[in-house]
Amino acid sequence: MSGFRIAALSAALLFPVMAQAGDLRADANAVFKPVDAASVNAVVKNNPITPAKVELGKKLFFEPRLSKSQIISCNSCHNLGTGGEDSGSTSIGHAWAKGPRRAPTVLNAVFNVAQFWDGRAVDLKAQAKGPVQADVEMNNTPAVVEATLKSMPGYVAEFKAAFPNDANPVSFDNMANAIEAFEATLTTPNAKFDKFLTGDASALNDTEKKGLRLFMDKGCSGCHSGVNVGGNGYFPFGAVAKPDAAILPAADRGRAKVTNSDADAFVFRSAPLRNVALRAPYFHTGSVWTLEEAVDVMAKSQLGATLTPDENAAIVAFLGALTGEQPKVTYPILPARTKDTPRPQ
Amino acid sequence: MSGFRIAALSAALLFPVMAQAGDLRADANAVFKPVDAASVNAVVKNNPITPAKVELGKKLFFEPRLSKSQIISCNSCHNLGTGGEDSGSTSIGHAWAKGPRRAPTVLNAVFNVAQFWDGRAVDLKAQAKGPVQADVEMNNTPAVVEATLKSMPGYVAEFKAAFPNDANPVSFDNMANAIEAFEATLTTPNAKFDKFLTGDASALNDTEKKGLRLFMDKGCSGCHSGVNVGGNGYFPFGAVAKPDAAILPAADRGRAKVTNSDADAFVFRSAPLRNVALRAPYFHTGSVWTLEEAVDVMAKSQLGATLTPDENAAIVAFLGALTGEQPKVTYPILPARTKDTPRPQ
Repeated sequence: MSGFRIAALSAALLFPVMAQAGDLRADANAVFKPVDAASVNAVVKNNPITPAKVELGKKLFFEPRLSKSQIISCNSCHNLGTGGEDSGSTSIGHAWAKGPRRAPTVLNAVFNVAQFWDGRAVDLKAQAKGPVQADVEMNNTPAVVEATLKSMPGYVAEFKAAFPNDANPVSFDNMANAIEAFEATLTTPNAKFDKFLTGDASALNDTEKKGLRLFMDKGCSGCHSGVNVGGNGYFPFGAVAKPDAAILPAADRGRAKVTNSDADAFVFRSAPLRNVALRAPYFHTGSVWTLEEAVDVMAKSQLGATLTPDENAAIVAFLGALTGEQPKVTYPILPARTKDTPRPQ
Repeated sequence: MSGFRIAALSAALLFPVMAQAGDLRADANAVFKPVDAASVNAVVKNNPITPAKVELGKKLFFEPRLSKSQIISCNSCHNLGTGGEDSGSTSIGHAWAKGPRRAPTVLNAVFNVAQFWDGRAVDLKAQAKGPVQADVEMNNTPAVVEATLKSMPGYVAEFKAAFPNDANPVSFDNMANAIEAFEATLTTPNAKFDKFLTGDASALNDTEKKGLRLFMDKGCSGCHSGVNVGGNGYFPFGAVAKPDAAILPAADRGRAKVTNSDADAFVFRSAPLRNVALRAPYFHTGSVWTLEEAVDVMAKSQLGATLTPDENAAIVAFLGALTGEQPKVTYPILPARTKDTPRPQ
């Protein structure tokens, strides 16, 4: 386990009482940050975000012809209408294959420390290449994707405009770059919690404020902190007590598969909790269908705590205050296929 | 075969020369009509189109939770980004079942004489109930759909607003009514052809004008006429010569299954040709991947004609001029599921 994880987890487990003193807003600002859509330019590395790239990336995000069947797009599993993920539990992909984990939300994903439940992709451009090729997801190949995109003059022109200095603009890499640029725009600012953090003390009602205080004092914020209220570090699921096998099956050892270290068994990236009220079912298994139950599971398994119904309700109310303004996206009109476009399979 | 069909087909086959005289625009206006988005209020029966109904219908059109798996929406097979249908050939539905026919486009479908390739649904509200229940499509039941919609307060409020005089607003019937209202907005006006019809003689170039003249004189417009350049009558596919079995398989006898009449064997609703250049592959089998080939197939099978390459190219150019302004749709944010929402299966 990394030093960062140990420190964060120890703080959460051992010193929850410290935060009880002080002003709620000041305490919250020491732990969390509001969503700032403009900040993504600094967050995204080696891929300047331009309007041309974002528009192209939007088309690609909704483009079913990136998949072998030509019916599955990024939006199929990261549905912008339902909190940036599908309706659970774990995703269904090519030939109705059931994926091993629930689709993580694409909303605010740009702010996560890394992508996927186990953090195996360093950023969104690396992430975007995974599902396109995974046999249980879109089941395609970079060669077919490039042939598909090059077959349509509309795409060729847009790639040239989005990557004007690139000798070979229509490439699998640039597909991923454009998708990252679009996804970086999928932030959800101005949640009630953001308004509270930035100075509007009345933005949260009393129950939500109580929930926020509990969220910090009980220790939830030990793992769920920062701009995404999570998504910023790796922690063992079942730190205090392993939840049911339906929630945490033995076969999925989480980040251990990425690091090849037994110390990372059942370690996952902490779930980012922005818009969490829109995104049932919960956990990487998509096995818990209400936020109320998910909060109780986390309290028991991570903190060894049993919440009273009032405490649970207050924390759930606070989590509801993390719902921000959802992206306004005009559904893209995609280039028409040509005689050279590979056919679905 | 109905009298209307005989008359139309006979005119197409026997008197193509008559149209050669006269002014191209006047001749075209005698056969076709421009897309008029405002006219849909008069076209849609027993379902007044209101903004509340359209907005609700949009959500339902993109709502994957209308399907048993909760991953298939109307837009999955009638994708607004690719001409209002999927990327072919025939559609893939629940459990990766392959449907028997290609998804027809939803664009301008409001103007068709009836819905489906065989016209078995009298209008869009009747059509909308079919795929939701078909086992190879969304595979759901009206009872589960109603339970799903009633479980989400956001939907309950929108149904009440859309159907204010209805004692039981959240119903399977009203789901269909709302979807029809939204689909009635999916018209594509202002194609080059429409501009030509309404007075701009320069809206079509010389090749497109030649194609329009050929389209009328060869007899294509005998079946493909009216506002949708098709979609307005029933005609035998293979009237002169049956195309290959891959295009017209013996097992699918078309409208005969609807009317229980052998006279309707291999009779289909003529394909509406608006935006046809965006909608490969072609025919109910989705078996022909270019418009060039589709035009040749139709000339041979329906008219007994072999087109020269120039004639084919001119007709294809004219068909390209049927591409109108595609709908601008803001992707809807859907209500969040609750503990009472049925789970995907």
